Amino acid sequence: MPVVTLLTDFGTADGFVAAMKGVLLTIAPDAGLVDVAHDIAPGDVEAGAWVLSQYWNLFPPGTVHLTVIDPGVGGARRAIALVADHRFVVAPDNGLVTYVVRAAASWRCVELAEPRYMRPGLSATFHGRDIFAPVAAHLARGVGLERLGPALNEVRMLDIQPPEKAEGEIRGRIAHVDRFGNLITDIPDDWVDEAWHIVVRGHAVGGLRRTYSDVDRGELVAVIGSMGTLEIAAREASAAERLGVARGDPVTATRGSFSR
Amino acid sequence: MPVVTLLTDFGTADGFVAAMKGVLLTIAPDAGLVDVAHDIAPGDVEAGAWVLSQYWNLFPPGTVHLTVIDPGVGGARRAIALVADHRFVVAPDNGLVTYVVRAAASWRCVELAEPRYMRPGLSATFHGRDIFAPVAAHLARGVGLERLGPALNEVRMLDIQPPEKAEGEIRGRIAHVDRFGNLITDIPDDWVDEAWHIVVRGHAVGGLRRTYSDVDRGELVAVIGSMGTLEIAAREASAAERLGVARGDPVTATRGSFSR
Amino acid sequence: MPVVTLLTDFGTADGFVAAMKGVLLTIAPDAGLVDVAHDIAPGDVEAGAWVLSQYWNLFPPGTVHLTVIDPGVGGARRAIALVADHRFVVAPDNGLVTYVVRAAASWRCVELAEPRYMRPGLSATFHGRDIFAPVAAHLARGVGLERLGPALNEVRMLDIQPPEKAEGEIRGRIAHVDRFGNLITDIPDDWVDEAWHIVVRGHAVGGLRRTYSDVDRGELVAVIGSMGTLEIAAREASAAERLGVARGDPVTATRGSFSR
Repeated sequence: MPVVTLLTDFGTADGFVAAMKGVLLTIAPDAGLVDVAHDIAPGDVEAGAWVLSQYWNLFPPGTVHLTVIDPGVGGARRAIALVADHRFVVAPDNGLVTYVVRAAASWRCVELAEPRYMRPGLSATFHGRDIFAPVAAHLARGVGLERLGPALNEVRMLDIQPPEKAEGEIRGRIAHVDRFGNLITDIPDDWVDEAWHIVVRGHAVGGLRRTYSDVDRGELVAVIGSMGTLEIAAREASAAERLGVARGDPVTATRGSFSR
Repeated sequence: MPVVTLLTDFGTADGFVAAMKGVLLTIAPDAGLVDVAHDIAPGDVEAGAWVLSQYWNLFPPGTVHLTVIDPGVGGARRAIALVADHRFVVAPDNGLVTYVVRAAASWRCVELAEPRYMRPGLSATFHGRDIFAPVAAHLARGVGLERLGPALNEVRMLDIQPPEKAEGEIRGRIAHVDRFGNLITDIPDDWVDEAWHIVVRGHAVGGLRRTYSDVDRGELVAVIGSMGTLEIAAREASAAERLGVARGDPVTATRGSFSR
Repeated sequence: MPVVTLLTDFGTADGFVAAMKGVLLTIAPDAGLVDVAHDIAPGDVEAGAWVLSQYWNLFPPGTVHLTVIDPGVGGARRAIALVADHRFVVAPDNGLVTYVVRAAASWRCVELAEPRYMRPGLSATFHGRDIFAPVAAHLARGVGLERLGPALNEVRMLDIQPPEKAEGEIRGRIAHVDRFGNLITDIPDDWVDEAWHIVVRGHAVGGLRRTYSDVDRGELVAVIGSMGTLEIAAREASAAERLGVARGDPVTATRGSFSR
């Protein structure tokens, strides 16, 4: 039974996701549908790209990840499907696959161009139902990627600066703020250890600890998060609120100044 | 594997939907459960009816649509099941099926009256768990509609005025406001073309375009929406907020005055 | 096909639940995943425990209930799995299973201690993905409970005072406030009848009725709720707002004073 996951910014209360599910199950009745999230902030492609990075390669090979955050629907942006490390992603070509492409050992991509794998009578406002869902269903049924359209050598990438490490200083950014107010950075775990002093937008956080409960309730703590990057949290509280910071804000680490 | 979809106003955080799912899977272990939405505004039957209209006939024949928005639970309202164009709907008889009945080529309906297809020890406050879920599960297992109770020739319909077209003027209404603030009207696509001038509660929107990106960011645009009706949007913004309008507000179109 | 249900306080918009689902389906590809809720208030173990009580034993025997509300992740709290009346629960040992253990005819519990049933490279911040999801998947595949770790004779219970009944007076509490603002108490149905007069934090509610629609719209009403306990509601309105009360507030019933 092939699995199709769904990530959108559609909410659920308008029935748009349900329409996609109906289309999916009509074409691929045996597909296992798995909801990821539908409450991504409307049009927030960067949030969607980050969320996709959390799960895409944890699913079994052959899984189809249907991802529709598509503020440019009906306009000039392309529609794409790619296979990365044996998992498929179907998406608008607007940067949603940025982290997948960066992390994958290998990937191939096509532009969706074959009407036979789309819904007849294509709407101009709902490609989730009319293009992305039917294509995902056909992939789940085993249709080959190359049959969906011409190969692409490039996809659109989000313009996100990677972290930098110089002698005694690391400069990264908050890549995501989660529901708990934890600040998930882009700084890899093997760049930092207890000897580094961490600062978020001017606020000293101190040095690296093992887990949240290594500090008292409400205190700030730097740990290695679940995806192997530096994370700043407040124990059983929101670090984002405490520090008044948001996605994109700078995080720096300096070495040897921990005793200050 | 029969599919059972679930639409409620229960939210998820109270476990009521989970209770229904447990009952469903106990009776029909092979049913594929598909969440539609549980965040319909409490008691908003019209919203539920509109949402149901978006997906009911996109699912495979035989699908059972379980829909519980039921402010009158335990009172005098009937409980019903119907089959419309080969899909089943199980619901309280309060207007939830209005758009299904209007759109279906044919339908048959029964009143749920057979205790053998309900949960023993019926509660007076949770018919979702005790009546609607078990009935949906039995339908998914192949129990015939007519075994559930006596036939009904009529169901309750919402009192929604259909759109009107006179010489040179169309009067419709906002049937739904979606998550993005798009105003979805009840005016069919074949009533309007570029020659019509569209006005929403006194605000001139102009003429029909093909898609959102035919205007600049933030500008209002009239398009044919994904269900084949006139829709007023603001590109990558909320038309509902921009215009201060809501479901039920009037939308008019006049012909030949586009040059104004 | 074994069923695995998921209850968390993770929200869905960070991809954490999706990561757990990927891990589950990689280990147990045939498991049927059923979402319960992911919008429990962050860290609200008591809410999670109450929600779990609504559905755990309505699912078929063999079902695995994965429940992760885990403010103490990475700290000293144990991770557990138990079987209660033929359903499994996998959870942090922080009181989440309180109502299950109270209600079950019999239960057995183990501490999760076998790394072979966990994800290699355990994180310190995301045991949902690295411990609880893989263990749930292995249980769904039929791995015996006793293989997961050493038996426990006790689990942590929430410190919730049970209701008390004395001559002519019952003292209980609001165990849960649901989405509709209904006040669900812990007072069992067979303790009260029409002869009891019910008071919520100083507000007289009157005597027991059969269902919500036995009073006019907006009026307060006491009924027996869907789990067989006393519930105070306001018809098609929020009793919680009307009375300004919350979970934990006292509810009392006195006998024979109904004529007041």
